[in-house]
Amino acid sequence: MSSSFGQLFRVTTFGESHGPGVGVVIDGIPGNMAVDLSVVQEWLNRRRPGQSQLTSPRAEQDLVECLSGLENGLTLGGPVTLFVRNTNIKPDDYKDVSQVFRPGHADFTTLQKYGVTATSGGGRASARETIGRVAAGAVAWQMIRCLHKDFEIVGWVRSVKDICVDQSIEDNLDLCATTSLVDKSEVRCPDISTSQKMIEAIMNAKNHGDSLGGTIRCVIRGVPAGLGEPVFDKLEADLAKAVMSLPATKGFEIGSGFAGTKMMGSEHNDALIRKDQKITTLTNRSGGIVGGISNGEFITFNVAFKPVSTIFKSQTTVDKQGNEVTFKPERGRHDPCVLPRAVPMVEAMATLVIADHVLRQRSMSPFTNLLT
Amino acid sequence: MSSSFGQLFRVTTFGESHGPGVGVVIDGIPGNMAVDLSVVQEWLNRRRPGQSQLTSPRAEQDLVECLSGLENGLTLGGPVTLFVRNTNIKPDDYKDVSQVFRPGHADFTTLQKYGVTATSGGGRASARETIGRVAAGAVAWQMIRCLHKDFEIVGWVRSVKDICVDQSIEDNLDLCATTSLVDKSEVRCPDISTSQKMIEAIMNAKNHGDSLGGTIRCVIRGVPAGLGEPVFDKLEADLAKAVMSLPATKGFEIGSGFAGTKMMGSEHNDALIRKDQKITTLTNRSGGIVGGISNGEFITFNVAFKPVSTIFKSQTTVDKQGNEVTFKPERGRHDPCVLPRAVPMVEAMATLVIADHVLRQRSMSPFTNLLT
Amino acid sequence: MSSSFGQLFRVTTFGESHGPGVGVVIDGIPGNMAVDLSVVQEWLNRRRPGQSQLTSPRAEQDLVECLSGLENGLTLGGPVTLFVRNTNIKPDDYKDVSQVFRPGHADFTTLQKYGVTATSGGGRASARETIGRVAAGAVAWQMIRCLHKDFEIVGWVRSVKDICVDQSIEDNLDLCATTSLVDKSEVRCPDISTSQKMIEAIMNAKNHGDSLGGTIRCVIRGVPAGLGEPVFDKLEADLAKAVMSLPATKGFEIGSGFAGTKMMGSEHNDALIRKDQKITTLTNRSGGIVGGISNGEFITFNVAFKPVSTIFKSQTTVDKQGNEVTFKPERGRHDPCVLPRAVPMVEAMATLVIADHVLRQRSMSPFTNLLT
Amino acid sequence: MSSSFGQLFRVTTFGESHGPGVGVVIDGIPGNMAVDLSVVQEWLNRRRPGQSQLTSPRAEQDLVECLSGLENGLTLGGPVTLFVRNTNIKPDDYKDVSQVFRPGHADFTTLQKYGVTATSGGGRASARETIGRVAAGAVAWQMIRCLHKDFEIVGWVRSVKDICVDQSIEDNLDLCATTSLVDKSEVRCPDISTSQKMIEAIMNAKNHGDSLGGTIRCVIRGVPAGLGEPVFDKLEADLAKAVMSLPATKGFEIGSGFAGTKMMGSEHNDALIRKDQKITTLTNRSGGIVGGISNGEFITFNVAFKPVSTIFKSQTTVDKQGNEVTFKPERGRHDPCVLPRAVPMVEAMATLVIADHVLRQRSMSPFTNLLT
Repeated sequence: MSSSFGQLFRVTTFGESHGPGVGVVIDGIPGNMAVDLSVVQEWLNRRRPGQSQLTSPRAEQDLVECLSGLENGLTLGGPVTLFVRNTNIKPDDYKDVSQVFRPGHADFTTLQKYGVTATSGGGRASARETIGRVAAGAVAWQMIRCLHKDFEIVGWVRSVKDICVDQSIEDNLDLCATTSLVDKSEVRCPDISTSQKMIEAIMNAKNHGDSLGGTIRCVIRGVPAGLGEPVFDKLEADLAKAVMSLPATKGFEIGSGFAGTKMMGSEHNDALIRKDQKITTLTNRSGGIVGGISNGEFITFNVAFKPVSTIFKSQTTVDKQGNEVTFKPERGRHDPCVLPRAVPMVEAMATLVIADHVLRQRSMSPFTNLLT
Repeated sequence: MSSSFGQLFRVTTFGESHGPGVGVVIDGIPGNMAVDLSVVQEWLNRRRPGQSQLTSPRAEQDLVECLSGLENGLTLGGPVTLFVRNTNIKPDDYKDVSQVFRPGHADFTTLQKYGVTATSGGGRASARETIGRVAAGAVAWQMIRCLHKDFEIVGWVRSVKDICVDQSIEDNLDLCATTSLVDKSEVRCPDISTSQKMIEAIMNAKNHGDSLGGTIRCVIRGVPAGLGEPVFDKLEADLAKAVMSLPATKGFEIGSGFAGTKMMGSEHNDALIRKDQKITTLTNRSGGIVGGISNGEFITFNVAFKPVSTIFKSQTTVDKQGNEVTFKPERGRHDPCVLPRAVPMVEAMATLVIADHVLRQRSMSPFTNLLT
Repeated sequence: MSSSFGQLFRVTTFGESHGPGVGVVIDGIPGNMAVDLSVVQEWLNRRRPGQSQLTSPRAEQDLVECLSGLENGLTLGGPVTLFVRNTNIKPDDYKDVSQVFRPGHADFTTLQKYGVTATSGGGRASARETIGRVAAGAVAWQMIRCLHKDFEIVGWVRSVKDICVDQSIEDNLDLCATTSLVDKSEVRCPDISTSQKMIEAIMNAKNHGDSLGGTIRCVIRGVPAGLGEPVFDKLEADLAKAVMSLPATKGFEIGSGFAGTKMMGSEHNDALIRKDQKITTLTNRSGGIVGGISNGEFITFNVAFKPVSTIFKSQTTVDKQGNEVTFKPERGRHDPCVLPRAVPMVEAMATLVIADHVLRQRSMSPFTNLLT
Repeated sequence: MSSSFGQLFRVTTFGESHGPGVGVVIDGIPGNMAVDLSVVQEWLNRRRPGQSQLTSPRAEQDLVECLSGLENGLTLGGPVTLFVRNTNIKPDDYKDVSQVFRPGHADFTTLQKYGVTATSGGGRASARETIGRVAAGAVAWQMIRCLHKDFEIVGWVRSVKDICVDQSIEDNLDLCATTSLVDKSEVRCPDISTSQKMIEAIMNAKNHGDSLGGTIRCVIRGVPAGLGEPVFDKLEADLAKAVMSLPATKGFEIGSGFAGTKMMGSEHNDALIRKDQKITTLTNRSGGIVGGISNGEFITFNVAFKPVSTIFKSQTTVDKQGNEVTFKPERGRHDPCVLPRAVPMVEAMATLVIADHVLRQRSMSPFTNLLT
């Protein structure tokens, strides 16, 4: 079990979906920094269940409590601990599922690894674990903004099943989408017409006891050039790990991504140009990172999420005695599509990566900078 | 700069493309284990330039030398250091390029980060750095085989530009492709007809001074269930980071990947079944990892590589005085397509991840296992 | 701020003396292991204030609460979080001291480092932070005992000021002292006559508003040969760091320690002998560790603690405006001698080190062992 | 095996005493920093054998070679690798000792841990491993001096057996000893009369085939306030670990150390005073570190070294077949007293700790500092 992430801005999440609660310890925050817990609560509100018809009806308010590290709204230099109590646990819902390995879930592998599983809920594999990540992301975001005031991050649902935002619209969203614009859509797709189709598809799947997957696009603006630590902790490598550690993710691509493999080098290279006394690039196929180091352009990446594993249909599986059985859950509180609630999770993980690399670059900044 | 990878099986690479040489320190190998350096040399031979018309003509034999850690072919428990001298350095080739920021290359970002760049060659950003990774991968492979004798890893070129192996052929390759089969193709695509088309496309690009990208597929067989350390060091998260830390990679997908986002949950879930006294899955959309932990099925993933940045065409860029210039390199030794040589790099990185998690699971194995 | 300790058995403490509480996240415990929280509470009871006339009257029950990681008394494989609420905070006691840098305390250095200090209490520098360490130590102890049933650890107060247990008595204590024997003494010195003298000295200092230091001796029995990770994570090096990270420690010595520097090599070397089919040593000047690796003998070490910094006498210091002032605290709840309560702290830190190296050696055990 | 040290300024040593050579990879050095290899060679010259009649006659020049990371005397931002070839290996000298477990040596514990030992020499347990540490220390020293130009470190032999520099002389040495002064003495004790007695004692032990131990004192001047990372990576904790990871060390004490345990709190507390517009302390019993954080005063510590294990006298031990035997080595090249050569080793380890914490504090510096 490895519950820590980051080298300098280091978060450690804890808690299970049906235990007392879930939380995070954030170590490595400089002292004397203002942290507003209401910003943390806002991030958690975007992640919590029960926001709309599209999400799980689990009735959790997810109110954040600070257990350490802050006094009068300032960091003390020690670890900041944030905790959210579980208040709406229904172990009975898991009675019928606790005797089988649910397809697509981590029941089988968890037992193989640890020799034990939680008797109800998904334990650490539950998406409730991401509460700690989102809370930490909201703190990281505030720290970065102190140092780089133009820093912005915004994610949105780019596709649900085969319903996808058009390329021409996406290019515009890269430039101007904001969280408030994104949140106007129940499904967190800021293109209204695509959003409507996605909602219909999700409700249709829900009504049939089925589930859907999709992709999220994330754009980070205002990142200074120079972040990323080759050769192993390249910025895109850490972003890839960050989002691929979220539940249900199946893929990551930066900049031109898989589509870029079909271009010629002469099409793909971003020309460097001079603009307003600054060196920039004419295009952004790199996605803002070259050789593992940010170049100052927008950082853009996509993440693939599989359709939710919990469905209310008959499936073949094996029970804990090793017998093949037919399994059909009768109840339970699950999202038919995880994408809308996954947006703040992706943003949080990417923010944690940037925060860590901001601190790392503070330590590694070249010596000539000291003289100028 | 972060030149180390892995928690327990920990490798640290060093060296620049135009310095004395490149190498790796491997720390965390148990003692008294047989290591055959000829296996290491074989892996390096698959990576080295000059193998065919498709690869860079840089004439390097890449002969491996062991500086520490082995005596009479056995590990002593301390770090194993492997070193390859650079013998075919031509700094003159870089004279005309050293005054500009080459598009697609790390020149600009390296200078932003470190305040300095190597005067010739790509320094640490050169693909020569991967020699240390491949050498370490060959050692890791031998270690894993001692513990899990069915362990196999094989990668191949799945696509070059828009030339891609058919899905029906790929499913068969997942089951039976081997390194020796793959290496029969100059481009390392084991499907003969696709291979031929890829070679033609690459030679055509080369003749026009242009370059191509593509994707690599990798399959790992014989991995025991239980590897991977949720919540952050999930096996797919570490694989993603591993391959996204290689030069020129733009994307990673595990199992069903981006295509899986278009399926319904009822289509995507892998049914668990009982076969030969063993619990297995009917399909393998998970790609052998569920909840971040291996389930004993094949691990399958794809990696996207952008077209090579070095092309022999006129491009707009900026020189180190900040002036926009037109840039066209006249000479230099580069691959028109990195894919064939990238196969052992991807295999090596994935092998390092598995080796690390094999050792981690040794330490974390549940206490009931001790009793059985 | 670095609040984590250990590579595989990894603890992260959090909390300040005057915040909501203090706690610890323990990551890296194998699953399906029994953890008895009443053992944790016993360890905390030995550490808590108010045990006797010798210790601070701060009235804290220090009741442990488990926030994650356990179900039905078994580890789930994820992080175990233990938390103790602060219930007896008296910020008013700190009003007169909050405007000066208290001599011997971390006020000045904390402000230099973090740009801020807690407005009352010692913040993270308070000995209350060690609650998380002691709680984690009690869990580590239970884990080690599952794997090595002969494992025992016992510390005691060896000296207070210049009152020291005789060498001849100490040799016997090394062999047979137990926690229950040690705890019969209010000062935790198991030699009755020395104990009585120590208590008198401490009460005398207390009555004069002064404080005392001393040394703790710790013996660990039943540690298997082979623990310790040269060249940097030698077992004695990690023990040294562990205890030197406790508040008020000034020195560490293993085995013969500083006294051993006065011996000739021919006196100091421990002869290896054969006894009961086992290789052992005739003497134990090494303190159970040779070349950084345990040899199966008793591990013995001493730790120096300075006299407590809080005294109720006039002292020269500087206030936060930079003026030299005379400072004399009128009240506050402090131990006149930290030694009795430091015993479980030292035991806890040493236990954490052993636990970590037990898990590390599981991963590094040589390959021949696999065959036998 | 753990061959890496440091979080940000991270060194990894490699190599065995009878292998091809020994070296170090230094990762985490900022780019564009001048590194003078002749300074590295000077440090190595102080460590190498054959310097005087007091040291091992092994004829090694220990010439340093740079394998990576530097170009034209400047760091490139990537890992700097330094290597020293072994040139004077005499495996025949080990023929008579290779069949027994040498008392005081790591032969027995190495075999228990790794299942194998080097067939000649001490392998990784040899003091030759410290070449990598000393070389890295010399690089770290240059880095720190770029950032803190008053930084100075000087160690000396404070005692050999029971011959010890007087306290009154030592206080003066703390203030003014320099490496050049120390090196005027063959035994590296800068007090001439004590030095002479030490040399006599060592030559006497040598002539009798015996060996001696002693203590080293180290003073670090010009360290800024604010270094050290509570609660676990306190500056004294990291110093303790650093020196206790050196071969043959048995104890560490900071500031007042073990002697300080005999003082009253009212004697021990260092009064803070105002001097030349600066806050300083009247005495320095803390040893320059309070609460784990440097306070800007001199950092002072002592290290205990046991007498060298190799002696030319009959000793009882066990051979590798498990039989008790009498063992007397006839030849071999060893120091009768390791202290003179240990001085640069201690300095190097302490310098590595300071370098690491300098970089860590760059990342953690409080946000108010950014505004001033």
